[in-house]
Amino acid sequence: MSYYQRHIFFCTNVRPEGVDRPSCGRCGSQALRDYVKARIAEAGLAGKGGVRVNTSGCLDRCEEGPVAVVYPEGVWYTYVDEEDLDEIIEEHLVAGRPVTRLMIP
Amino acid sequence: MSYYQRHIFFCTNVRPEGVDRPSCGRCGSQALRDYVKARIAEAGLAGKGGVRVNTSGCLDRCEEGPVAVVYPEGVWYTYVDEEDLDEIIEEHLVAGRPVTRLMIP
Repeated sequence: MSYYQRHIFFCTNVRPEGVDRPSCGRCGSQALRDYVKARIAEAGLAGKGGVRVNTSGCLDRCEEGPVAVVYPEGVWYTYVDEEDLDEIIEEHLVAGRPVTRLMIP
Repeated sequence: MSYYQRHIFFCTNVRPEGVDRPSCGRCGSQALRDYVKARIAEAGLAGKGGVRVNTSGCLDRCEEGPVAVVYPEGVWYTYVDEEDLDEIIEEHLVAGRPVTRLMIP
């Protein structure tokens, strides 16, 4: 059993202006990660043995972004808004059922 | 098989001055992560199916830091210098053998 039961990383990278690749951090990923972190804390799921919600640097899947990855499963997601993230929280992070419609292979 | 065979996250968080908890980012973790990232690239191991080396926000194991975590295994490490990281690269990231002497449970 890993230290955290599930560990989700949100890319919040922001590329410099003028670079011709998209950036997860320009799609609201910092605010949306903060939303997930707050919801996990409110649900009493934060901490050892629970769920950890982190920012990360560039996960190098920029064209598919904004992206997040859940370990130890290694399930990758793209998402648009809080509604998508509510589904990831309730289905995957809490109930352990990956959300097929938001997964990227 | 996950998108990356192994994915290592280095906490590079720097707490504000005056906060009475240690910070991985004040232990040189950004530079040491950059060292690992460069070594993985030089070895031709970067990219899909290979090894990804990322920074992350606070992993909340501050008192045991500086810390890094390798997924999908969920193996946690503390380290001091490039010599420790060389061992993690060669033994774990390349050969798949976690380095017991640097692990934290």
